[in-house]
Amino acid sequence: MRNDFHAELDSLTGSLSQMCGLAGLAMERATQALLQADLVLAEQVITDHEHLTRMQLHAEEASLLLLALQAPVAGDLRVVVTSMQNVADAERMGGLALHVAKIARIRHPAPALPEEVNGYFAEMGRIAVDLGNNARDVVLSRDPEKAAQIGRDDDAMDQLHRHLFTLMMDREWGHGVAAAVNVTLLGRFYERFADHAAAIGRRVVFQVTGSTPDV
Amino acid sequence: MRNDFHAELDSLTGSLSQMCGLAGLAMERATQALLQADLVLAEQVITDHEHLTRMQLHAEEASLLLLALQAPVAGDLRVVVTSMQNVADAERMGGLALHVAKIARIRHPAPALPEEVNGYFAEMGRIAVDLGNNARDVVLSRDPEKAAQIGRDDDAMDQLHRHLFTLMMDREWGHGVAAAVNVTLLGRFYERFADHAAAIGRRVVFQVTGSTPDV
Repeated sequence: MRNDFHAELDSLTGSLSQMCGLAGLAMERATQALLQADLVLAEQVITDHEHLTRMQLHAEEASLLLLALQAPVAGDLRVVVTSMQNVADAERMGGLALHVAKIARIRHPAPALPEEVNGYFAEMGRIAVDLGNNARDVVLSRDPEKAAQIGRDDDAMDQLHRHLFTLMMDREWGHGVAAAVNVTLLGRFYERFADHAAAIGRRVVFQVTGSTPDV
Repeated sequence: MRNDFHAELDSLTGSLSQMCGLAGLAMERATQALLQADLVLAEQVITDHEHLTRMQLHAEEASLLLLALQAPVAGDLRVVVTSMQNVADAERMGGLALHVAKIARIRHPAPALPEEVNGYFAEMGRIAVDLGNNARDVVLSRDPEKAAQIGRDDDAMDQLHRHLFTLMMDREWGHGVAAAVNVTLLGRFYERFADHAAAIGRRVVFQVTGSTPDV
């Protein structure tokens, strides 16, 4: 019975880990679609998202079954419940990549961004991939050092996000309103992607320690 | 034992209901702060949010305890787990009201919005209050008709949100880039507020029926 339970718990954790990696991959592709006005890649991100949503439903059902049939307590209970919460964050990360891809698609064949900000988004995309991969690893290893790295990446993302606003609020911004609207939305999507990864990192710390870090 | 359980479940549901109402109230006040450049009210929304975050932590702890000590199954298990998820959405709704209040504060004493769009935001604020109040009622009553009303309000919010974009993308937009950035962010906050309320409505249907509505 307990062995079954732990096998199923491992399978749940494995799915969650995979979802984090897929969300990172989706943001990597969405960023490339955005920067290169690549319609095929944008469409792929949009189509692939359904898979992540299905994985979320399966993981939620599996969690409910585990709770109903095994009634776990203490650390095991924390892992089931936080995995369920993390699965929602991972799906949302993929949903934000989907939003980025949709903006790339709606502007195609024109680029969605003025060239001046491409470097910022390339860097935000790089951090997003890092966040997805670190979340993927940390839900398996529960390594506190890697969980802390997620927090640092989140800070780096916030800083880039603030820079973007400074750029747009500058009187020298010469790319007009439509570009500013895109940059505002896109910046927000990357920033939220990082927030969700950070929430996953904090819950992994909670799984291990039973208390949530402040930041 | 079971009576204790149901008393605690009612208390959890009661907290969730209260949180939804408080999130609606926060958005009502944040909207007023935004439209009237009311710094005192903005500060109040910002300060009050901590209360909602504390309520979330307590509700999550109470849910974990219920799962650990009572090992509920079937419908009762669904109520505990979905209440935990709903609590996170209600807290996030309050967090979005907080973001609106922060924009009102940072622009004060200037208004954050050009007068042309005030009517849109007044209406989005009105819908947000409605969403908060309907979510508050529906988690208690589990009335499917009221849950459906949440979905309709979410649609109405989406429509207003799209109108805002049409306005900004118009060549006649004469309020500059900074105003467009504010309108983009604020519009997104109201739209996400409605999405979270809609998620709560769908989970209430799931509590009752065991399956999630498509929309």
